Amino acid sequence: MSESPNTPQPFRAAHHPHEGDPVFDLHVGGKMGIASTPLTGKEDLSLAYTPGVALVCEAIAADPAMTQHYTWVPNTVAVVTDGTAVLGLGDIGPAAAMPVMEGKAVLFKQFGGVDGVPICLDTTDTDEIIETVARMAPSFGGINLEDISAPRCFEIEDRLKERLDIPVFHDDQHGTAVVALAALQNALKLTGREHATTRVVISGAGAAGVAIAKILIEAGIEDIAVTDRKGVVHSGRDDLTPVKKALAEITADRCGRAGTLAEALEGADVYLGVSGGTIPEEDVARMAPEAIIFAMANPTPEVHPDIAHKYARIVATGRSDFPNQINNVLAFPGIFRGALDVHATAITEGMKLAAATALAELVGDDLREDYVIPGPFDPRVPGAVSSAVAEAARRDGVARR
Amino acid sequence: MSESPNTPQPFRAAHHPHEGDPVFDLHVGGKMGIASTPLTGKEDLSLAYTPGVALVCEAIAADPAMTQHYTWVPNTVAVVTDGTAVLGLGDIGPAAAMPVMEGKAVLFKQFGGVDGVPICLDTTDTDEIIETVARMAPSFGGINLEDISAPRCFEIEDRLKERLDIPVFHDDQHGTAVVALAALQNALKLTGREHATTRVVISGAGAAGVAIAKILIEAGIEDIAVTDRKGVVHSGRDDLTPVKKALAEITADRCGRAGTLAEALEGADVYLGVSGGTIPEEDVARMAPEAIIFAMANPTPEVHPDIAHKYARIVATGRSDFPNQINNVLAFPGIFRGALDVHATAITEGMKLAAATALAELVGDDLREDYVIPGPFDPRVPGAVSSAVAEAARRDGVARR
Repeated sequence: MSESPNTPQPFRAAHHPHEGDPVFDLHVGGKMGIASTPLTGKEDLSLAYTPGVALVCEAIAADPAMTQHYTWVPNTVAVVTDGTAVLGLGDIGPAAAMPVMEGKAVLFKQFGGVDGVPICLDTTDTDEIIETVARMAPSFGGINLEDISAPRCFEIEDRLKERLDIPVFHDDQHGTAVVALAALQNALKLTGREHATTRVVISGAGAAGVAIAKILIEAGIEDIAVTDRKGVVHSGRDDLTPVKKALAEITADRCGRAGTLAEALEGADVYLGVSGGTIPEEDVARMAPEAIIFAMANPTPEVHPDIAHKYARIVATGRSDFPNQINNVLAFPGIFRGALDVHATAITEGMKLAAATALAELVGDDLREDYVIPGPFDPRVPGAVSSAVAEAARRDGVARR
Repeated sequence: MSESPNTPQPFRAAHHPHEGDPVFDLHVGGKMGIASTPLTGKEDLSLAYTPGVALVCEAIAADPAMTQHYTWVPNTVAVVTDGTAVLGLGDIGPAAAMPVMEGKAVLFKQFGGVDGVPICLDTTDTDEIIETVARMAPSFGGINLEDISAPRCFEIEDRLKERLDIPVFHDDQHGTAVVALAALQNALKLTGREHATTRVVISGAGAAGVAIAKILIEAGIEDIAVTDRKGVVHSGRDDLTPVKKALAEITADRCGRAGTLAEALEGADVYLGVSGGTIPEEDVARMAPEAIIFAMANPTPEVHPDIAHKYARIVATGRSDFPNQINNVLAFPGIFRGALDVHATAITEGMKLAAATALAELVGDDLREDYVIPGPFDPRVPGAVSSAVAEAARRDGVARR
């Protein structure tokens, strides 16, 4: 899909304000564009546009399933944000969020062959976001929610999933959760632990923390304590939001955990940090022998890997400059690729678990302390994840082909 | 912007239901996709995505004008429809409208270098459409409204123009009006008519008819009668909608026209058909000598060109298989190209007139009865239109650079 030689080119200022900075130089003019079928003459114009196109419109009006054959919709995903929880920057608004959404679209294309369309919304109202996305939905094959702050992100995802018959997926929750579970499965294997008897502490009860807790439970881990700034989230506290109350019931309440983060870490097998905070070395030192520490806050891990390694056998972070990077680019492109390939109506728990297992299995016999998860450019990743997800969609009865 | 060799390719059924039909064959998989900056390794990933991208987000948060340098937004246009007035097919809904919106995006790219993003909305409520588009607006450099039925299209465009500081343009109105005016200017020149003394009849008081009447007035034509199914739209009628009432006041009321279409055509210099209806030969025969007839209904002109030529000196249609095609692809790609190039806050009347004049002037000394408007693949068109529009934007004070 090339451009006609006479296509006017967009205006570009001769200079830009941050010239010479490699980040800004790469961003000049944005990171994406539309590629379209070239029309070589009147004949093409009459097929792709009037009068020919009317036949395709009529075919879809008569049978909406024809959308899958004759439009770009089945390969598209809207990357939707309100700009309230962008990276570690927080609520920077929709305009400033765009470079991240474009980045997401770049990753969707490169690793999943998915056409991602960034949609940055000028509202932070839960109902308005839901209405807006639902009204746009005929334009897309799936919805990837991104960088929307908790607790609104939970309700927005839940209600859109109920309302739409295409996949809706909040990547900050489930992308991170899938990759963390994949790495954890390998870490448990390497340290000879069983899911049912492993004690896990998660710091951070936001989007990622809640989703990680849920997927660990799905995977068979029973002893989980999630902490926020006030300590373990349990039903004995009177300051819990409805989301945290529900979280308490499926985590700490079931294993009788309470107290501070430091107390929870006493003898814990696994620490999963998605808090953006820090934990002191003396608390790390309280963990069980051969501990597993995933300090995933970016850019500053909750505990520096050098410190963590003094006490833990396996350490992972969210950063590319340390081993074992928990990077959700390992998950979302393949998950959507698989879901779109079978025209799935949803992304189920089974599909997420299948993605995690597929990722974990790619490590195979090369499993060792500094290799519990594949790297983001491992060429096997997208295909392995998408195949596993498509198969799980069929198994779960959400595949339409 | 190429794809990585390992990018999984979208699922495509081995066969499609209308195989062998050239229209459907061209539409398999849709007519467009996303092209993105390829990432060749971890270094690229850290520039285009985390952690590097955070610098760009911060720069935009500090100065929203940076959006123009470092995102794809300034080159994008949302192609928005609710599917209520698609081609001649009418209200076929958002899903069935998609092939036309993709076609529009193809034309935007090929003829304007503009990244068009089709947005088909699952609502026909005026307020909901306005709210939805306004909320999405931070994602786009402009809004092209498309195939939204009258009279809602007028209010939707007007209110969005008031609310947003980016160009909002209903192509069914203004694209058609600009091209019709361009062709008419040349036709008047060829037949030696003055704007001020030319009598024009427009059949069709929908989106295109209203917009054509308005641009003709801007261009200095004073004697205009617009007809709907009940005859000339004038204030003596008691069945007028608010839009038609306003139209009557600036057209028929000013020149004292009333009666039927046939009566209005008596002695008229120009007939402009955007009605989808037909006019009988005996009515055409009543027009002035050396009449000008633009029968623009598609695919069936209001009067067949062979009949029209018996009475008129200049005949144009909306079809590519007759001379003088009034095709709005001559206008909208260059209009948006010019508006985006100067980061215009709106598309003014001056910019539309400038586009029409630029189009008309391209014909130059080659002007003759069967060549009053350039063809859609004339390579001079996009550049001439965009330059004229950008210049007019500066003149009208809506250019931000």
